[in-house]
Amino acid sequence: MSSKVKLGTLPLIYPIPIVLVGALVDDRPNFATIGDCGLVGIRPPLVSVSLHADHYTTRGIREHGAYSINIPCADMLVVTDYCGIVSGRDVDKSALFDVFYGEIAAAPLIAECPVNIECRVVEQVTIQHRQLFIAEVVQTHVSAEFVTDDGERKRIADLGQLAPIIYALDNRYYAIGPQIGTGYQEGKAYRPE
Amino acid sequence: MSSKVKLGTLPLIYPIPIVLVGALVDDRPNFATIGDCGLVGIRPPLVSVSLHADHYTTRGIREHGAYSINIPCADMLVVTDYCGIVSGRDVDKSALFDVFYGEIAAAPLIAECPVNIECRVVEQVTIQHRQLFIAEVVQTHVSAEFVTDDGERKRIADLGQLAPIIYALDNRYYAIGPQIGTGYQEGKAYRPE
Repeated sequence: MSSKVKLGTLPLIYPIPIVLVGALVDDRPNFATIGDCGLVGIRPPLVSVSLHADHYTTRGIREHGAYSINIPCADMLVVTDYCGIVSGRDVDKSALFDVFYGEIAAAPLIAECPVNIECRVVEQVTIQHRQLFIAEVVQTHVSAEFVTDDGERKRIADLGQLAPIIYALDNRYYAIGPQIGTGYQEGKAYRPE
Repeated sequence: MSSKVKLGTLPLIYPIPIVLVGALVDDRPNFATIGDCGLVGIRPPLVSVSLHADHYTTRGIREHGAYSINIPCADMLVVTDYCGIVSGRDVDKSALFDVFYGEIAAAPLIAECPVNIECRVVEQVTIQHRQLFIAEVVQTHVSAEFVTDDGERKRIADLGQLAPIIYALDNRYYAIGPQIGTGYQEGKAYRPE
């Protein structure tokens, strides 16, 4: 066995998805860049985001029980990083993007992001100063150029085209790499020794 | 504004981290491949995984209040995919890996994975048939070849070296791409128009 080094309590999960969480705060759309988010399930469709309890965005999500997840592409890196540096308390971030709405009035969506997910909070968990908002997906919007429709079903472009911004706890951003396989196929013929 | 297509309630978060969740089930180490996991916070160090309530691994986590997150690298794709296809009810997955333990007796760790995170459950949330386990990190282990220690601090290798398996809801696996920036730096000089 290769030797291991102990790093203490570092929550070293990777890759971390970088998303812009949208909420209405004081009746104004606000967007915060976070990596503390994830898939909770597909059926039912559940996601989660976690924020500092004192975060400006947190107040809006608490008040309205709703938020949006907007996934930027790599060419939005500068403005996305900027939205993680400045607070909506100090800067009107609604002016940075072309904002639109779907079914939830308190979930502002960013037109420039290829994917926008409208989320309604179903559970809240407070752990020390972290606030976890578990939500059901109400509607997902994808920019038309990333969807093909063969009549039978709508297919989403691959990650190479969606070009997400990926983060890790080395504080670096990364691009996506090439496809390396298909789910539930690669291990199909595997037989343990 | 580019036109948008509605995809219904698809929880289209990406990139999805592929991890092997370890637990003791019926006193045997078991490992399940999932993408429903994420970072919940750094201070305090919190993570979450979500499983089907009837999942074999779920029983072990419930019973012991502990699990591990083991992050495979791309050259483990076949066995990782396999662990997502077969259930621990039918196959003894403890035989697939070199298993070791850290501080939590009920959190089996996979030596072959470059990163192993020992997790103690602090909150459980049930939503329909999904079971979300929020946990604090007790200890994180990293294979020595991925850590450099300059005397002052330990640094982790970049994602290019850690070579995670990335997933998306197009059911494809992806490799990581090149570094494209540094957190809290790219947007520092940005001034909205």
